[in-house]
Amino acid sequence: MKDHCRGKMIMTTNTTPSIDLNQHDDQRHAFLDSIDTLIFDCDGVLWLDHHVIPGACEALAKFRSMGKKIKFVTNNSTMTRHQFLVKIQSFGIECSIDEIYGSAYGTALYLKSIQFNKKIFMIGEAGLENELRDAGYSPIKFNTDHTVSGISNAQNIEIERDIGAVIVGMDTSLTYSKCVYAHKAITQIPGCMFIATNTDHSYPVRDGTLPGAGSIVTMIQSSTSKAPIIVGKPETLLMDVIIKNEGLDRSRTLMVGDRLNTDILFGINSGTKTLLVLTGISNKQSIIEENIIPHFILNTIADLI
Amino acid sequence: MKDHCRGKMIMTTNTTPSIDLNQHDDQRHAFLDSIDTLIFDCDGVLWLDHHVIPGACEALAKFRSMGKKIKFVTNNSTMTRHQFLVKIQSFGIECSIDEIYGSAYGTALYLKSIQFNKKIFMIGEAGLENELRDAGYSPIKFNTDHTVSGISNAQNIEIERDIGAVIVGMDTSLTYSKCVYAHKAITQIPGCMFIATNTDHSYPVRDGTLPGAGSIVTMIQSSTSKAPIIVGKPETLLMDVIIKNEGLDRSRTLMVGDRLNTDILFGINSGTKTLLVLTGISNKQSIIEENIIPHFILNTIADLI
Repeated sequence: MKDHCRGKMIMTTNTTPSIDLNQHDDQRHAFLDSIDTLIFDCDGVLWLDHHVIPGACEALAKFRSMGKKIKFVTNNSTMTRHQFLVKIQSFGIECSIDEIYGSAYGTALYLKSIQFNKKIFMIGEAGLENELRDAGYSPIKFNTDHTVSGISNAQNIEIERDIGAVIVGMDTSLTYSKCVYAHKAITQIPGCMFIATNTDHSYPVRDGTLPGAGSIVTMIQSSTSKAPIIVGKPETLLMDVIIKNEGLDRSRTLMVGDRLNTDILFGINSGTKTLLVLTGISNKQSIIEENIIPHFILNTIADLI
Repeated sequence: MKDHCRGKMIMTTNTTPSIDLNQHDDQRHAFLDSIDTLIFDCDGVLWLDHHVIPGACEALAKFRSMGKKIKFVTNNSTMTRHQFLVKIQSFGIECSIDEIYGSAYGTALYLKSIQFNKKIFMIGEAGLENELRDAGYSPIKFNTDHTVSGISNAQNIEIERDIGAVIVGMDTSLTYSKCVYAHKAITQIPGCMFIATNTDHSYPVRDGTLPGAGSIVTMIQSSTSKAPIIVGKPETLLMDVIIKNEGLDRSRTLMVGDRLNTDILFGINSGTKTLLVLTGISNKQSIIEENIIPHFILNTIADLI
């Protein structure tokens, strides 16, 4: 299952038609009995923009009272788990730090899982840096104000020769110099890994979108002709990390999300059960259009209890 | 033939086997008689790194004495024609400014050809800016030192609302702010064009490569989900501009290059004759591997006379 982390998405097709739990009240109880752990995408599932989905808090409290494990995942690499905890709790949702898996934390866990012990060059925000530091790594400091100008200055940028990994996430302080540094490390240092926190091409904000981590990753991938190891959804690395860290049984784990091509594909690719809720981006028509078939469908997470 | 300028390369296949002019001394004269204009890629054809190809100067002088038109093309958008003229002449090659077509100049000519008269936002070096200014355009000044930090600052970047084109080329002063500006103009302003000077993913320098214009274009294409209009080789827009500007007959025009997937494809896509010289990147084995078949092959441009 590792191969598709290298820049190409292998779609593990689920060909079984979705069970619409809206139509089968009687099946919800049996369905919940078959699940030990619920892994939640958040925006579009538990809240939408700045408003909690009605009944979501109560549903999660009910799952907890039934003894279910709850996990929260996010591809956003700009926030540490602590920052994400504050955000989740701001919606009145019960949560603890050890239930949160972001792509920044997932990247740090992945590095530890492979006993990575070389230098890191990072394109990313403080959220990524802090997770790496918490895991014992010290990403190379590259002055964010260090903007070169002109080809000859760019080619004179010197890199440290013992870098073992370039990690690329969302970075609002991106400069051409940083790209040159990453490009040189990946193309000039034998064995240097290229790791992407996630591949979301745009980053949703209040009034539209910004260029996302995925667009920066695409630039480095394009210039170096190297495919990255991808941590975030819909690749499986983040799920592998959660499954291993928590000792979960994939067959009794449910990925809950509102987007077919990230959340649901993430669950399908990872071998968990998947539940599409219709409170966010994808709808029933999307299933036909994208041909990504969730195991279960429900209008809202609140309807599961 | 216009469609393939929008981000996807349509390979107009030439299925006729190449004529190896090395093997057919007798055909070279007839071949030259069938040509009015020779369009040269430069690096790998007329010079290699810092050394002129032996006999190249004499060959070009001979073509001129035979009454042939000579043109020079480059995808490099960082240099103005004046700068490129100095470079060509530094190799002892006779050249005049009106014989030079770079992707920066080609972009300016393209804008004029469509009577473009709106505002321009540009990601690029002084070479691109100067060619646009020479054509009467004033690209919006965006402080290259203006680096924002943090999502909220990035989303607060205000763009001018009457931009009609975002032009993206190689830019060693690239910042995330510039990407945000380009991204917002392309995604928020109806009808705003997205033009790429060229799509070379890497930029060759002394000791390796740097991220090229194509990698920056790929980033903006990825974040906006919009395909650019591409000026440079192997797309046909630059050739269309040359043909129109010079009043050339495509069937009596020869594109001479050392790279199959840029120069030769450029000629094939544009409906000119093509000559691969073996003094640069591609060799006879490349023709089989890449399945791009030049009309003619010759060891070196000097051998044509």
